[in-house]
Amino acid sequence: MTPRFDLAIIGATGSVGETLVQVLDEREFPVGELHVLAGAESAGRTLSFKERNLRVAAVEGFDFSRVRLVFFAAHPSVTLAHIDKALAAGCQVIDLSGALPSTQAPRVVPEVNASVLDGLVAPYQLSSPCAPAVAVAIVLAALREQVEVRRLTVTACLAVSSRGREGVAELARQTAELLNGRPLEPRLFEQQMAFNLLAQVDAPDEQGHGVLERRVGEELKQLLALPDLPVSTTCLQAPVFFGDSISVSLQAAGPVNMEAVLAHLASSTVLEYVEPKDFPTVVGDAVGQDVPYVGRVRGGIDDPTELNLWITSDNVRKGAALNAVQLAELLIKHYL
Amino acid sequence: MTPRFDLAIIGATGSVGETLVQVLDEREFPVGELHVLAGAESAGRTLSFKERNLRVAAVEGFDFSRVRLVFFAAHPSVTLAHIDKALAAGCQVIDLSGALPSTQAPRVVPEVNASVLDGLVAPYQLSSPCAPAVAVAIVLAALREQVEVRRLTVTACLAVSSRGREGVAELARQTAELLNGRPLEPRLFEQQMAFNLLAQVDAPDEQGHGVLERRVGEELKQLLALPDLPVSTTCLQAPVFFGDSISVSLQAAGPVNMEAVLAHLASSTVLEYVEPKDFPTVVGDAVGQDVPYVGRVRGGIDDPTELNLWITSDNVRKGAALNAVQLAELLIKHYL
Repeated sequence: MTPRFDLAIIGATGSVGETLVQVLDEREFPVGELHVLAGAESAGRTLSFKERNLRVAAVEGFDFSRVRLVFFAAHPSVTLAHIDKALAAGCQVIDLSGALPSTQAPRVVPEVNASVLDGLVAPYQLSSPCAPAVAVAIVLAALREQVEVRRLTVTACLAVSSRGREGVAELARQTAELLNGRPLEPRLFEQQMAFNLLAQVDAPDEQGHGVLERRVGEELKQLLALPDLPVSTTCLQAPVFFGDSISVSLQAAGPVNMEAVLAHLASSTVLEYVEPKDFPTVVGDAVGQDVPYVGRVRGGIDDPTELNLWITSDNVRKGAALNAVQLAELLIKHYL
Repeated sequence: MTPRFDLAIIGATGSVGETLVQVLDEREFPVGELHVLAGAESAGRTLSFKERNLRVAAVEGFDFSRVRLVFFAAHPSVTLAHIDKALAAGCQVIDLSGALPSTQAPRVVPEVNASVLDGLVAPYQLSSPCAPAVAVAIVLAALREQVEVRRLTVTACLAVSSRGREGVAELARQTAELLNGRPLEPRLFEQQMAFNLLAQVDAPDEQGHGVLERRVGEELKQLLALPDLPVSTTCLQAPVFFGDSISVSLQAAGPVNMEAVLAHLASSTVLEYVEPKDFPTVVGDAVGQDVPYVGRVRGGIDDPTELNLWITSDNVRKGAALNAVQLAELLIKHYL
């Protein structure tokens, strides 16, 4: 009989947390007891899992010795508040919040750097990278043999679902107000989000870089094992409900063999390649899918070492929940 | 008494054409007779100018000897169909369509390369560059003393007004249908435009580059007098009504002095600089304005020669109509 694992999901009522519950079910993860945890204000709500109703409990006071594996899918501060208790109780940890340093919880995308798991020591801790890093890393790793990346420029247009359910509701509300000709008081977002593009998704630091922008660059370098790769990242908030759209321009170490790149992308199983003339969009090709979509694959106009790509990906699914469950599957296979 | 000039606007009923009429009025351009021309299907409509009503006439059969200056603001094919007649009649020409080669009609933005006018020979022909090139060129030219650009990556998110009035109407229609839960049949755009990002704005060529993407690169090289500059351009269609949002990442010849860059941008009169923490958007800061807005000015995280910028600009106004009228003013001052 397959062993079953008792799990906890912290942040279970968020959109990533709910998708985690759904993906565990879809992939028939060998779940024993599933504890769905959240802030005290969400305790008592129910989530359905395998035709059962799970009651959401408060993460405060949870006895981590009841589970073997914990998904941290809430705010980084929640991870930091509870990680020591989880580790002291001997839990394995998969962090989706980005709170843990990569020396403690290496960033892993199974299609990119699963070999990182070989070097882990107990208690096993892994981080699921941020959604844009997952998508870009999968595509660049698939092209590893064809393109030696020397410089990377990433412009990531994030869906409002990156701000959770409130982001989705607020874009819908603003859009309806404007279409009805009513004056708009933006909430949640700093400026009008409907029919507008916002140039940042979180507060910039002294140098002007946002938290997510730094995270994308650091995680890509770790995932691709290119610690010295210069990465320029700009994260925009787009008036799109679900899915990330990412424009990538890179410089390779030498002239890019476009024929080899296109042939390799077309035959890859870890991504969906969209032929020229057509192109992927989040609405048509990314949301609900398990792999990133890649199109508009172009060399440089002026520079034979340049490669340009357009990537769309489900930020909640492969960008977070699905990748985290895949990491849990790897952990089980390796160690549990 | 100031001399007055008889003018023709071809494409007068489009959004750029109508804005041309408006800007000529606002800036008190010394207009004598103003002929507003369009395709036969629009002939007979009226446009208001200086409290008069102008009757739109068909461009077919227009006698170009009646005017001294012609604005071509329709499709490139219309420019190509009528340019020879206009030149044969001795007209000066300002082309907004991009149809004429830069050897014939150099690209000019007054804030960037007005000195090009010194070398013109009659009949004088100038091109007003495409909107993203105008905005980016103004900003980079303002930083000419501070930053020697060696490589440029431009991701331009275009408003649907770049597709004219039909683009605006179609985004509104799609949005209303979706908010009302009705099924959507996209028109005009290749895919759903509402709550989505489209990865191209026109048909790509054999190498995958769109017409506008090539135009942005070529025009920037000409405007900045950097013929060998490698430029990577991606043009996206965003669910935004008016105004272009442009993310720029560049490499300079040496380390960027950020202090000097910020100080210079803050004191520039040809653009509006937005301090860190805040950032410009098309809705809040670009539409209806005569200058581009620049914000999110950041160095590189990994590379001291990198500079990142976010630019918003009114694509119909400074990106087209206003710049074209400014070119006409320069022509008059120099030659007429």
